[in-house]
Amino acid sequence: MNGKIRIGIDIGGTNIEACAAGESVRDINEVLFAHRKYPRGADLGGLCSCLEELIRELAGNGGFCSDDVISCGIAMPGALDTARGRVIHAYNLGLHDAPVVEELGKATALENLQLLNDADAAAWGELKLGALAGVTSGCLITLGTGVGAGLIIDGRLYTGGRGRGTEPGHMTLDLEGRECTCGNRGCVETLCSATYLEREGRRAFSDDGMTAKRIADMAREGDVRAKEVFDRYTDNLSAMLASYIALLDPERIALGGGVSLAGDILFSAVREKTERRSFFKPICDIVSARLGDRAGAIGAALYSR
Amino acid sequence: MNGKIRIGIDIGGTNIEACAAGESVRDINEVLFAHRKYPRGADLGGLCSCLEELIRELAGNGGFCSDDVISCGIAMPGALDTARGRVIHAYNLGLHDAPVVEELGKATALENLQLLNDADAAAWGELKLGALAGVTSGCLITLGTGVGAGLIIDGRLYTGGRGRGTEPGHMTLDLEGRECTCGNRGCVETLCSATYLEREGRRAFSDDGMTAKRIADMAREGDVRAKEVFDRYTDNLSAMLASYIALLDPERIALGGGVSLAGDILFSAVREKTERRSFFKPICDIVSARLGDRAGAIGAALYSR
Repeated sequence: MNGKIRIGIDIGGTNIEACAAGESVRDINEVLFAHRKYPRGADLGGLCSCLEELIRELAGNGGFCSDDVISCGIAMPGALDTARGRVIHAYNLGLHDAPVVEELGKATALENLQLLNDADAAAWGELKLGALAGVTSGCLITLGTGVGAGLIIDGRLYTGGRGRGTEPGHMTLDLEGRECTCGNRGCVETLCSATYLEREGRRAFSDDGMTAKRIADMAREGDVRAKEVFDRYTDNLSAMLASYIALLDPERIALGGGVSLAGDILFSAVREKTERRSFFKPICDIVSARLGDRAGAIGAALYSR
Repeated sequence: MNGKIRIGIDIGGTNIEACAAGESVRDINEVLFAHRKYPRGADLGGLCSCLEELIRELAGNGGFCSDDVISCGIAMPGALDTARGRVIHAYNLGLHDAPVVEELGKATALENLQLLNDADAAAWGELKLGALAGVTSGCLITLGTGVGAGLIIDGRLYTGGRGRGTEPGHMTLDLEGRECTCGNRGCVETLCSATYLEREGRRAFSDDGMTAKRIADMAREGDVRAKEVFDRYTDNLSAMLASYIALLDPERIALGGGVSLAGDILFSAVREKTERRSFFKPICDIVSARLGDRAGAIGAALYSR
């Protein structure tokens, strides 16, 4: 790789994905990737050693040295103090009050390190090289164990009016619905996550081995009970998307996370139902995210305020 | 009045409120007001004559001439093409495809006319001289016959990613709830408007003369049935505010419109319940709007992109 390099790292509880990109990168094929399992049980020092190794691997494969690196973005889950480069709480990683930027800076001698929320990083990645390319107003919604999102408003990442980000997973969708871990009832997360599909699938089939993917596959193949479960799921998700559209009138919505892999059976139902439920018609495009698990690392690499 | 003058006009289906403010206005006491009944049945030409008279009245009372006027903002309800200064549809006013800016420009010889949505104008007024002063992220939510809002994001009026504004009244709050005029079910407007209080009050008391204000007054005086109705209302409104806070993490929320006049019985319940339901804790300030029916005219006068 020639010229100035931007590094991005996306730290998850299971995997760490890292990448290196040139300043003027235009396509994911020009990005170099490397990954590791998360070093379970390691403290902050252990994590930083692991990250330093990853960066060394990228530099070796890409033929660049640390002097070529002009920035390093670090995407993480949990509650972050991005201005100070500290993790406040990342329960999945066992990190609390951890000065990630300072320690990684020491371990690598890199400068211009920036910490950011993992869902925000993924939205930024999709904006720069993926499904949100060209929009000034849109979002990436990830449908996984929970429901996360990153918002693009006026071409910028919206990190919250008080810096706490966006949590559409905890918007109310059903006033008297199921209790959520957050203390509210009927949150989006209880109705639109892969966990919902799994729970309702297990109930419908009295089968504790049922997964969200299996329900989607069976629905696609025409199984009546699976179709009913999946149909309720797309009802819920459409109501959530209609809420988001009513509030922010976006240009494009990208859906990512495990459930988005269901493909057309998801997208055709969600587009039609969201159109029906929406105050603003016609609705904006609802598309599949394109960068998958690499969105966070790419966004972390390319992020700049 | 001395120096350069900004005119603002808020055109409602019942009343038209107009004002004149100096460039460096700091307080509502420095603003001059005038008003008229809406000229029912008039066409666009008739409306513009009425507005021209209003502006002449302001100029007479304020001792300024049209050469002193540097801008004129016009706030209106309905679907607007603000860039072209046209009303697309304003059903309440009986105006369709009406070039308001062009016609008012001809009638008054004023320049620098700007059309904007009435809820947006009210939020801008509260930002400049009212309850949202000093925030970079917040909103005014009006609880009237419907539920409207104007959003401030990054210190600017958010007019939608596709220019269609914001309609939180049509966010879904109850998946299987009552049908809304928009085609969705369980919209905020069916659960958080003055219309909800009136409808539920009439049902609880089997009294078709019951009003939203009466329910609030009786709840304040301790009537058990009225308290139950009002309590469900504050449950609903808190769920809506918790949704908005989860998505946008604002610094401050101002509540306006008829229901906001209920005062402490509304605000103390809503603050406590929203705190309980919110993902982000502590929640932001929830305060009463301060400019009442004058917010729209003030915002129209002081608006600049």
